[in-house]
Amino acid sequence: MGLAVTLAGATGYTGMKLLQLLRAHPRVDSVRVGARGEAGEPLSSRLPFLCEAEGLRVEPLEALAEEPGAALFCCLPSGVSPAMAARARSRGARVVDLGGDLRLRDAAARARWYPQAAAAPPAEPAVYGLSELARQEVAGAGLVANPGCYATAALLALAPLARSGLLADGAVIIDAKSGVSGAGRAAELRLQFCEMHDQIAPYAAGREHRHVAEIEQALAGWSGHAQGIVFTPHLVPADRGVLVCAYVRLGSRATAADLRSLYARAYEREIFVRLLPEGALPDTRSVRGSNRCDVGLRWVPEASTLLIVTALDNLMKGAAGQAVQNFNLMFGLPEDAGLPVSGDPL
Amino acid sequence: MGLAVTLAGATGYTGMKLLQLLRAHPRVDSVRVGARGEAGEPLSSRLPFLCEAEGLRVEPLEALAEEPGAALFCCLPSGVSPAMAARARSRGARVVDLGGDLRLRDAAARARWYPQAAAAPPAEPAVYGLSELARQEVAGAGLVANPGCYATAALLALAPLARSGLLADGAVIIDAKSGVSGAGRAAELRLQFCEMHDQIAPYAAGREHRHVAEIEQALAGWSGHAQGIVFTPHLVPADRGVLVCAYVRLGSRATAADLRSLYARAYEREIFVRLLPEGALPDTRSVRGSNRCDVGLRWVPEASTLLIVTALDNLMKGAAGQAVQNFNLMFGLPEDAGLPVSGDPL
Amino acid sequence: MGLAVTLAGATGYTGMKLLQLLRAHPRVDSVRVGARGEAGEPLSSRLPFLCEAEGLRVEPLEALAEEPGAALFCCLPSGVSPAMAARARSRGARVVDLGGDLRLRDAAARARWYPQAAAAPPAEPAVYGLSELARQEVAGAGLVANPGCYATAALLALAPLARSGLLADGAVIIDAKSGVSGAGRAAELRLQFCEMHDQIAPYAAGREHRHVAEIEQALAGWSGHAQGIVFTPHLVPADRGVLVCAYVRLGSRATAADLRSLYARAYEREIFVRLLPEGALPDTRSVRGSNRCDVGLRWVPEASTLLIVTALDNLMKGAAGQAVQNFNLMFGLPEDAGLPVSGDPL
Amino acid sequence: MGLAVTLAGATGYTGMKLLQLLRAHPRVDSVRVGARGEAGEPLSSRLPFLCEAEGLRVEPLEALAEEPGAALFCCLPSGVSPAMAARARSRGARVVDLGGDLRLRDAAARARWYPQAAAAPPAEPAVYGLSELARQEVAGAGLVANPGCYATAALLALAPLARSGLLADGAVIIDAKSGVSGAGRAAELRLQFCEMHDQIAPYAAGREHRHVAEIEQALAGWSGHAQGIVFTPHLVPADRGVLVCAYVRLGSRATAADLRSLYARAYEREIFVRLLPEGALPDTRSVRGSNRCDVGLRWVPEASTLLIVTALDNLMKGAAGQAVQNFNLMFGLPEDAGLPVSGDPL
Repeated sequence: MGLAVTLAGATGYTGMKLLQLLRAHPRVDSVRVGARGEAGEPLSSRLPFLCEAEGLRVEPLEALAEEPGAALFCCLPSGVSPAMAARARSRGARVVDLGGDLRLRDAAARARWYPQAAAAPPAEPAVYGLSELARQEVAGAGLVANPGCYATAALLALAPLARSGLLADGAVIIDAKSGVSGAGRAAELRLQFCEMHDQIAPYAAGREHRHVAEIEQALAGWSGHAQGIVFTPHLVPADRGVLVCAYVRLGSRATAADLRSLYARAYEREIFVRLLPEGALPDTRSVRGSNRCDVGLRWVPEASTLLIVTALDNLMKGAAGQAVQNFNLMFGLPEDAGLPVSGDPL
Repeated sequence: MGLAVTLAGATGYTGMKLLQLLRAHPRVDSVRVGARGEAGEPLSSRLPFLCEAEGLRVEPLEALAEEPGAALFCCLPSGVSPAMAARARSRGARVVDLGGDLRLRDAAARARWYPQAAAAPPAEPAVYGLSELARQEVAGAGLVANPGCYATAALLALAPLARSGLLADGAVIIDAKSGVSGAGRAAELRLQFCEMHDQIAPYAAGREHRHVAEIEQALAGWSGHAQGIVFTPHLVPADRGVLVCAYVRLGSRATAADLRSLYARAYEREIFVRLLPEGALPDTRSVRGSNRCDVGLRWVPEASTLLIVTALDNLMKGAAGQAVQNFNLMFGLPEDAGLPVSGDPL
Repeated sequence: MGLAVTLAGATGYTGMKLLQLLRAHPRVDSVRVGARGEAGEPLSSRLPFLCEAEGLRVEPLEALAEEPGAALFCCLPSGVSPAMAARARSRGARVVDLGGDLRLRDAAARARWYPQAAAAPPAEPAVYGLSELARQEVAGAGLVANPGCYATAALLALAPLARSGLLADGAVIIDAKSGVSGAGRAAELRLQFCEMHDQIAPYAAGREHRHVAEIEQALAGWSGHAQGIVFTPHLVPADRGVLVCAYVRLGSRATAADLRSLYARAYEREIFVRLLPEGALPDTRSVRGSNRCDVGLRWVPEASTLLIVTALDNLMKGAAGQAVQNFNLMFGLPEDAGLPVSGDPL
Repeated sequence: MGLAVTLAGATGYTGMKLLQLLRAHPRVDSVRVGARGEAGEPLSSRLPFLCEAEGLRVEPLEALAEEPGAALFCCLPSGVSPAMAARARSRGARVVDLGGDLRLRDAAARARWYPQAAAAPPAEPAVYGLSELARQEVAGAGLVANPGCYATAALLALAPLARSGLLADGAVIIDAKSGVSGAGRAAELRLQFCEMHDQIAPYAAGREHRHVAEIEQALAGWSGHAQGIVFTPHLVPADRGVLVCAYVRLGSRATAADLRSLYARAYEREIFVRLLPEGALPDTRSVRGSNRCDVGLRWVPEASTLLIVTALDNLMKGAAGQAVQNFNLMFGLPEDAGLPVSGDPL
């Protein structure tokens, strides 16, 4: 006997990928799908890759909220999730929200970064679901806020340092590159094929991107003090993939061996985090289609700087894959149920 | 209890995809991998996406041939498969060859198109494994020659006409487009990123491509007479995907409804062939990651010409996916075991 | 002393390329630019590649029409050009229209394919400006309708046959592939980077695309009788480039040598049409950035079919480049003034 | 009367672009082309975009060195240039070398980074030709070492700080992204279309890339003391373009206005360096086909860090364009002769 789950929002890239994962999940028996303004429509009209799903129809969001099944996954625009999640909670479901509305605990921060959501604070605080770093909290949570893709890659890069008190002095530089699917499934001119073709474009550089807030919130939780980061995201002409370079200045007594040992211990038991051997660097193709985050280290003694490189698939570990990982933790299932560790070769 | 299988050649794109499919196959218990000149090497050194496979090592081809398990899959350069297949057959294994060496029955044709293989004729004739059109033969076969990607797309486009005797008069034009992975995993200048970027390049046009021979062999088998085709393949700057436009001149009494009915009957029970509704045309993204071939029809009465468009993923239905489909048929498994029907959303 | 010209519409891909060509043209002294709804805005705000143009401002279309200078180029949405062109003509300017509104001479055809333009027939008939095939008419014209990109590639492929009466029997199949810039600079979901990435997509197949009408109009003009074509355009994940395969069934007495000779004679004096040597096929990278159309031939005697392949840059010979070529003809300038024959190497 | 120039090496991407620029240069009358092992071959056989060049043949390198004309440009593999340059110098030519052999002044550094060249030290020291920052030296030079693409982008980002003594304390982080043409025109598996498609790949991170040496040499020259940088280059799936993010920690008294003023003064008279207005960030499409380098600033007071972003076309300002700019300086021509300031719109 498997679980019945519901998915609110399935026509963005994250929702599409999540629908695919849930339908193939060995412990999920049924998936109902809801969306705004498209109720009754066959899903295959919006998602032409869906073949066997001819029977799968879009339901109104309200219907899903009333009968959410064991778990509700929300892939919705900002402002819609909090009420939906509260309703589903009252019906006994556990909720994973893939949007940003519930990630920030501080009300002022939420008001700044998610103004549409700020008016409706959640009835219960959400657990910030970076699975490897909040496994116990997620397991017991009724409401999980799934982290952003950049935040997941940045925090897996920085967590071992932050938890060891090594982030104390100096700026943390995070230079991130993303495939275009990270910008959502939107008809915007800047995302048109010809505008992104042969393009390398930074945006929201410095401290302007929403993910700065959730990265700093998590770092402060681990290290006990506020940490100012500099964050530069870029779009590059790829479909999927996030690659983060985090640069951290450390005391001069650090050694390559100690740092490698720190990361090895942090991630040695993880299924979905792989520390690459010395000399190797992650890249996004190697994690395409996988729920894995690859980690590489490069200690530069001439500059007392540690470079940590992380790579993940923004739709998998950066969104839908981690949502399933959290679902697995919440329901006591094997953490990798329904989740590939190896990537898709091509 | 599942089956033990072996895979000879896993570092090309087809072999990589086949390895992935076999390792996830619900009825396959173990996969051993062999290659030339790389024995002993961990596979992950050549295939960085392979994470959990650290224990998976490359074995010499000879070792696989001696103990091939229940089934041997060959993804090898031309000239190597025939002897390998014969050895494995003598050890009781059933064989699916994904190369071209065994596809042509006529010795002269084989000598022309596959000179490296011609010296070593197979001990037994191979069944040409276009699954939907040779289901019974494949089920009983010991040796299956898996069709080429272009040939699969072209033959699924033309089979209903050929089997109904409608290909009799006039040339059949096949204009095909392929992603670059169809050209193999080779370090050639013409396949360099910057050479294929923004490129649309026909090649081997007319009757120069090897797949002309297997397409005409199959058409002749169905229609009872030789059929001269014109075939123009192109490379376009995509990773995966084959799209074929087949143009067939028909008698003036043909109607759109009759033609649609012919195709609907031909494929109505097929899991992996989908006839699109009137007005819709296939595209390659919709079948990406799926073992499906989508089919669209457009009757042009002004020119008495039927356009049949087919789209498939060259690594799935065009290679590794169809190999697994044939394996399923050979071993009496559900035809779609281990094979996705829906595509990967992104 | 050079010419003063005006350009109506400069923020689509064609207009951008035309602006670039006109500003670098050795016989053009000044270029004024007009657009709808953007008057007064600095052009560089919409066209960030424009650096030295800080002084270049967008003017209202009406202002340009009143003072069009020696020549007006129109890159405008359907329905806007005819009145604009008539006004500029009355002010003594010569006009090249890059839209489709003025291409069709037959009123019924225009009403079907360009309904927005049909209500306003042009005061004078436009010359259909396929430069090589209408050189005299263009030279004397006041109003030139610049051909579509697909039409240019298809007609350069077919003209030698049509003019020799060799298109008489049988269907002409035109299978065309285009980079995404051919679809315009529009914020449409189907043109989003992630939707076109790894995509091969036919559209408007059969006789549904507007260019069918102008291709057949030109063929009828040359051959003296109507010709039913089958036309399948595709979008592929390239930025620029059109490649056309035209398949023509000929009588069995045709020979490869005769056909090659026919094309050699037709184009031997052309600067911008290059017949490739036997065995070679055109591709789009080789003509990128050039105003050239490359032509390749492949005679398939087994099917009595001639394959003609043509390749051009849709923004150059397929739009802005040919517009400048026509402008050169109209003003008695060297035909290649301001136009590169060689492509951009990368 | 224009100049006669020679080009040694024209079949890599840099050489191809340089050939194109030189042939269109208003002050260059003739261009002869040499290469190793291809003498006598028509250039168009290797460079199919070259149409009118049918008469242009490849000559042996020795022939060029004997009669180099007024200027010799070298686009040659490491180890070949020094002797070639010395010979041409002895014949009275001025030389621009686009390789790395002559960039480093320190013999030990040259031996480490360019071992093939180390055995043959140049007869005269080369001027490091970052045009804007060495204008006088270049003008008087007989031998110019053209900077690397990453180095050009990094040094234009850092020069105003270095020259003002503001780089003194703390590490300088340089995170760079490049299109694949920056890796050269080589048939390597890692550069194959399918390997770079959807890929984001850092390489040679830390201090392993050759350009670290030339960046630090230039910084030391300006600031008077050694500067340890951290440098992470990446390949992304673009054809052309380099984008650099340089992160510099500054004293807390820095202000956004002062820093902007520093950069504005440094570059206000430059044709080919454009400081973008506050809030804007460079991207690579905007400089595609242009010899321009765009510069954007972002001061992050929370981290006392200045982010400088620079973007250029690696084949233009990063290689062939800057070589022509240096040639113009050397011969007293207008600095922008033959060089576009605006980019190619598409």
